[in-house]
Amino acid sequence: MSELHVPLGFVFAATKAGIKASGGLDFAIAEAPLGANAAAMFTKNLVVAAPVMIGRQHLKQTRGRLRALVVNAGNANCATGPVGFVAAQMVCRKAAQLLDVSDAFILPSSTGIIGVPLPVEKLVSALPRLVDEKRSGEDRVHAFARAIMTTDKAEKIVSAQFTIGGKTVNLLGVAKGSGMIHPNLATMLVYLFTDIQATPAQLKTMLKEACHPTFNSITVDGDTSTNDTVLLMASGVSGVTLTTRGAAKEFPKVLREVCASLAEKIVADGEGVKHVIKLCVEGAATPKAADTIARTIATSMLVKTAWAGADPNWGRILAAVGRSGVPVDPNLLDVYIGDQQVCRGGGAVKFDEVAAHKYMSQPKYDLRVKVGRGKGSARVLSCDLTDEYVHINADYST
Amino acid sequence: MSELHVPLGFVFAATKAGIKASGGLDFAIAEAPLGANAAAMFTKNLVVAAPVMIGRQHLKQTRGRLRALVVNAGNANCATGPVGFVAAQMVCRKAAQLLDVSDAFILPSSTGIIGVPLPVEKLVSALPRLVDEKRSGEDRVHAFARAIMTTDKAEKIVSAQFTIGGKTVNLLGVAKGSGMIHPNLATMLVYLFTDIQATPAQLKTMLKEACHPTFNSITVDGDTSTNDTVLLMASGVSGVTLTTRGAAKEFPKVLREVCASLAEKIVADGEGVKHVIKLCVEGAATPKAADTIARTIATSMLVKTAWAGADPNWGRILAAVGRSGVPVDPNLLDVYIGDQQVCRGGGAVKFDEVAAHKYMSQPKYDLRVKVGRGKGSARVLSCDLTDEYVHINADYST
Repeated sequence: MSELHVPLGFVFAATKAGIKASGGLDFAIAEAPLGANAAAMFTKNLVVAAPVMIGRQHLKQTRGRLRALVVNAGNANCATGPVGFVAAQMVCRKAAQLLDVSDAFILPSSTGIIGVPLPVEKLVSALPRLVDEKRSGEDRVHAFARAIMTTDKAEKIVSAQFTIGGKTVNLLGVAKGSGMIHPNLATMLVYLFTDIQATPAQLKTMLKEACHPTFNSITVDGDTSTNDTVLLMASGVSGVTLTTRGAAKEFPKVLREVCASLAEKIVADGEGVKHVIKLCVEGAATPKAADTIARTIATSMLVKTAWAGADPNWGRILAAVGRSGVPVDPNLLDVYIGDQQVCRGGGAVKFDEVAAHKYMSQPKYDLRVKVGRGKGSARVLSCDLTDEYVHINADYST
Repeated sequence: MSELHVPLGFVFAATKAGIKASGGLDFAIAEAPLGANAAAMFTKNLVVAAPVMIGRQHLKQTRGRLRALVVNAGNANCATGPVGFVAAQMVCRKAAQLLDVSDAFILPSSTGIIGVPLPVEKLVSALPRLVDEKRSGEDRVHAFARAIMTTDKAEKIVSAQFTIGGKTVNLLGVAKGSGMIHPNLATMLVYLFTDIQATPAQLKTMLKEACHPTFNSITVDGDTSTNDTVLLMASGVSGVTLTTRGAAKEFPKVLREVCASLAEKIVADGEGVKHVIKLCVEGAATPKAADTIARTIATSMLVKTAWAGADPNWGRILAAVGRSGVPVDPNLLDVYIGDQQVCRGGGAVKFDEVAAHKYMSQPKYDLRVKVGRGKGSARVLSCDLTDEYVHINADYST
């Protein structure tokens, strides 16, 4: 494993609170001892978990200032009613007491089973030892990454470093998410830590821009979680500010790259995924139209099962385009599998089917659909639908 | 098999034209020797097959008058360009010559592989013997039903009879569709034949009303076919007209029942389907809002895989409601599995999980979701997503 670029001004810890049935690490903290400016993006699902509601509230109260993030896996604290809300508040209160700040500087986060009461006493009693163990070492970052996993098969950590005027800026991203969903378990969680100095408003703008082509452009199964969270915390300890010459250009670029890399890791680790598909839709009237078409293709069960079979079945793609709700001319539809055109003007063209099948047997490949002569385009990172996905999600788990 | 009520004024035949790889029956005709008034509903997919385009055109030209329907299985004649259009025209022309009418009185229909040229010469050369063999017997109706099957496991025939003023009216429905889709094969086709007398406009109105709660309310996988067709032909030979006392009430009722029964047969025979779910959404602001929520639930891969496992996982249903795009109050969500409430006010209630699991293990059962205090409700007939669906659709088939 390559060296991690851990930003200055952060400490991490993870422990076993006894929430995961496996008995593994399931409770973690990331603290900025000197505080950090922060921005976050939350799920757009109207059904949201208690920690998401509280996180939004806290960031508003402190105007984007945080001391620590506390996150548990194994229980999403969603659809748990007022009791769940109070439970998340109790976790924040205990952490705040231990760190000697007010509750609003704590952001809570949860992932796991829905509709089951959060065993809050386990978290509260684990908090003192969690706070005791926090350090800045790489091993702690790995422990943090493992603790937030549910059915993820691999830790998802990406870090980057760049230098501005002789000073080093670090950006560290840790994510979890095995598909958008799991048997009762849910959620994509992404935490980004940096030592650059930036205001909450600047962080928000940059985070939004970075999320759109990355986390907002991946789809495993079309099911949006109730707990999705992307958090960016900036300690400012590097001494580099966004106004430092070059930083305003470099940091958003690195942020986008780290997000893109984490997004790809999430799709690749999606439930039952055998193939990651970079789907590009071009020629639409607007980028939004292209995006709608791309998502219709990428969430079609018919298309996704063809991808599972490495089947160059462009007819299914055409059918998905046709029902996307976007006005298109069927006679202007072109489909490319890698560099090979397989459909022209809505009809068949001769192509090397064996080569196409072989190309689609790769773990990662490109598909391109042209839907007309407009300039709107969109990219979506998606995956196939395999019997393993069904097995994972059909097991009687309640 | 129970006796079929075959309407007067229709003859049927089926033959082997050599399109299906299996060598089975794949070409069929239904003719009204004295002509019939007709109405049809076609797919709303923008990518439509040539026969659908021609069928629309012909019905317009004849103002809803038809002599015969000719339908082949094994090739959808979709995404086949101008050649496909001409091919469908050639089939109509040949049939029209043999029946001595103009081309527009023939409605063509196709189902099967997309993007492969229709072997039109096989159909044209099979037409004379098809026309020769048409008769009114029940055996011919069964042959017709078998000929239009693709991966359907069972023939889908429903018929009904009622009496008005001492005269008998018959309604016969024949359908195909194994899910909306199949490896390269597509399509729900429904043909309804009756001997009542009604104008094309009356037929259209009644057909539309009958389709909405039946064929338009089933979803197997959310993929709308490029060839979907529902056709209603009325020979008028019974001597009963819609204006006959009682008929205006009785016929639409029987039509809706026959459509409902065929729709249920289609879902039950859906690819890999183990459970048929009657999903009812209540309490929405409008019927449309309820329908949107119901379809979001019924097409969620997460929900459908839970159904496959007979898993009373109401959290997944809540998450689907929350991302449906319809404004709902998460604290007003109730979920019932059969008669048992499993979620109240967006939160858990104690319920008998073993009983719920057992209930959901049945081949057909009810689910009810209340989303608020409005009066809008909607019903959708759906099914689970099993590994068999993936196997059927992921086989490398091009």
